[in-house]
Amino acid sequence: MADIFERLIKNYGPIGQHRERAHGYFAFPKLEGEIGSIMKFRGKEVIVWSLNNYLGLANHPEVRKADAEGAAQFGLALPMGARMMSGNSSLHEQLETELASFVHKDDAILLNFGYQGMVSLIDVLCSRHDVIVYDAESHACIIDGLRLHPGHRFVFKHNNIEDFEKQMERATALIEKQKSGGILVITEGVFGMAGDQGKLKEITALKSKYNFRLLVDDAHGFGTLGKTGAGAGEEQGVQDQIDIYFSTFAKSMASIGAFIAGDRQIIDYIRYNIRSQIFAKSLPMPLVIGNLKRLELLRTKPELKQQLWDNALKLQKGLKDRGFDIGTTDSVVTPVYMKGGVEEATAMVMDLRENHRIFCSIVVYPVIPKGHIIYRLIPTAAHTDADIEATLKAFSAVKEKLDAGAYKTNAIPDMAEHK
Amino acid sequence: MADIFERLIKNYGPIGQHRERAHGYFAFPKLEGEIGSIMKFRGKEVIVWSLNNYLGLANHPEVRKADAEGAAQFGLALPMGARMMSGNSSLHEQLETELASFVHKDDAILLNFGYQGMVSLIDVLCSRHDVIVYDAESHACIIDGLRLHPGHRFVFKHNNIEDFEKQMERATALIEKQKSGGILVITEGVFGMAGDQGKLKEITALKSKYNFRLLVDDAHGFGTLGKTGAGAGEEQGVQDQIDIYFSTFAKSMASIGAFIAGDRQIIDYIRYNIRSQIFAKSLPMPLVIGNLKRLELLRTKPELKQQLWDNALKLQKGLKDRGFDIGTTDSVVTPVYMKGGVEEATAMVMDLRENHRIFCSIVVYPVIPKGHIIYRLIPTAAHTDADIEATLKAFSAVKEKLDAGAYKTNAIPDMAEHK
Repeated sequence: MADIFERLIKNYGPIGQHRERAHGYFAFPKLEGEIGSIMKFRGKEVIVWSLNNYLGLANHPEVRKADAEGAAQFGLALPMGARMMSGNSSLHEQLETELASFVHKDDAILLNFGYQGMVSLIDVLCSRHDVIVYDAESHACIIDGLRLHPGHRFVFKHNNIEDFEKQMERATALIEKQKSGGILVITEGVFGMAGDQGKLKEITALKSKYNFRLLVDDAHGFGTLGKTGAGAGEEQGVQDQIDIYFSTFAKSMASIGAFIAGDRQIIDYIRYNIRSQIFAKSLPMPLVIGNLKRLELLRTKPELKQQLWDNALKLQKGLKDRGFDIGTTDSVVTPVYMKGGVEEATAMVMDLRENHRIFCSIVVYPVIPKGHIIYRLIPTAAHTDADIEATLKAFSAVKEKLDAGAYKTNAIPDMAEHK
Repeated sequence: MADIFERLIKNYGPIGQHRERAHGYFAFPKLEGEIGSIMKFRGKEVIVWSLNNYLGLANHPEVRKADAEGAAQFGLALPMGARMMSGNSSLHEQLETELASFVHKDDAILLNFGYQGMVSLIDVLCSRHDVIVYDAESHACIIDGLRLHPGHRFVFKHNNIEDFEKQMERATALIEKQKSGGILVITEGVFGMAGDQGKLKEITALKSKYNFRLLVDDAHGFGTLGKTGAGAGEEQGVQDQIDIYFSTFAKSMASIGAFIAGDRQIIDYIRYNIRSQIFAKSLPMPLVIGNLKRLELLRTKPELKQQLWDNALKLQKGLKDRGFDIGTTDSVVTPVYMKGGVEEATAMVMDLRENHRIFCSIVVYPVIPKGHIIYRLIPTAAHTDADIEATLKAFSAVKEKLDAGAYKTNAIPDMAEHK
């Protein structure tokens, strides 16, 4: 008989296998100082492109003031217990009302954390007779929600409407055969890795052809897209066709927690039945107060979104002008696709960090196919022209070295913080 | 073809069905003012027995100071991103080290939220070949983790060692037949509803007979049990036999977040592979700082635990002396079992709140069998003798009325906040 632990530590997983050389550098790095475009990594200043602080709110003086005052007034314990039992407050309700209004929906429910909120949302919406049709590149929290679903699910190729229709035909046929159940479609407003928006316009146009409800995870669209910042649905003119709108506060809002918005009746149903909220603690009051302030800034300071987009477009144009492949992004998320092995990629990241003082995240095999490298740059309203210029120059310099084979090596260097 | 939404709003669920009369009173009530034994409910002072603020830390001056200073210094946004990508800090690591030491384990990993932490913990530990054997009264987050498990699971009757052995025989036979996989046993340190400790001593004694690893959710034991407050394992003298120790910060610590502690190798494995942490934001810095302070008080102020137990034993003895059935609790959690219908129970709760100014939580059908009522009282170090005396008198008074049939009614009154 096998011991569970023995099996686990035989293989520490895709990133864990490198932990003895990578810990504290390639994985679990510490960015120090106040959140902004320049932070400290291992004692030296770097230009940071890894934080989803899109609107620069993390360190906005009004946000910092609201965060400090909320914690001073209430402490971080209040309220205690789940919303339903003992953790409710008028401020929680006010934030729900304001969020619903901001995304042009009837009602909203606050979530104590986005990840478990999404998992339980999928769980609470679907019975075993329902069928879920979802995009292949859905975030981990959606996948975990799907894994809880006891019924059928069909995946469509990422943003591929032809395949979406194919899966909808399958789902519809299955429901008809079962003689019970409905269809829930799940996609994202913006896919966080490649930066392409979900095809909400095309999907919602098919509501006349197929019978389904649409759930959209707009984590990266909320606050960054649409005329009023209401997200990818507003940007594409179909916000009213989204039946369940979900966003985390961990990106534009630079906070934690999340929310679900939709028609009053369905939000009420969710409010009384969603497991991760009924059986776990309410969002602490200072976070509610901090999120009220952040939402106010989203509403009243459109110049922050304008600055974000100015920076994003400068960065994206600069990269394209220099011959970089940034794929199909139509959001501020800026991927840079290159080719090379894992060892080359790590040598290049080190060069960027140590010599060019650029800190950005990288994705390699086995997360993506062998031989591919994706840099993922997150521009924010807090970046400056100088940050963008320095980064463009650095990328040109390392790309030249990469193409010349200068990063070829057979080993990942030992950069670990702890021995 | 059915519409998912239509099905949902046909039945709002066990509590949701009463929402139009119950919202804001029986469900989603608002407790106002600072957390303590006396708070305000609908403008009037009540003695509160619903908050897991066991050690009274929520409103402890040192905690309030740490919470305020942490938020003033760092804001609530920092750090951004998942621990592995960009959300790590020395203070997160310090809290992990101190937590591991406090529960007498080698290493620990912080979790951004307990519910999703437990779900992903079960997920990351088990492959499809592994078998999970678990207590029937496990918390919702454990159940959701089990629901993600693609392999077999066997449930044993709550705290029933005979049945535990029976399920272990089944699990062992299955593993031998499969020729692969191991066994994970899951139970709790203290069951939050009935207050009885998990039979950790008896279960761990069976490690010589069966081959398994033990995961204990000690949400209610951490800080309240054991000589040093290390929980139910320490209390029962078997802390070293718990392979994976889990606790939330939502109870004794009066905060949010959670942790997992165990041997360094297995914690390292978890750190690099646990989905809800790898793919979601790190615990905000002020919560880390606030939890460091709370843990310091757990270590340095044993008088808080003493005061909690003094209060709990006074309350429990008082209830027993007055003839109440408090079941088999051997923790501070104090259930009171009565008999009556749902309508009687609500009338009694209203009498307690409106006339005796006692606020406590109640559990009725369909959560428990028809005709049963459970009050759940949570004593804390912040309660006073006067609170306890008033509560005992109130319970005697309402019990007398209940037995005399004075609460018999055919309807739940309309106490909703919003029409």
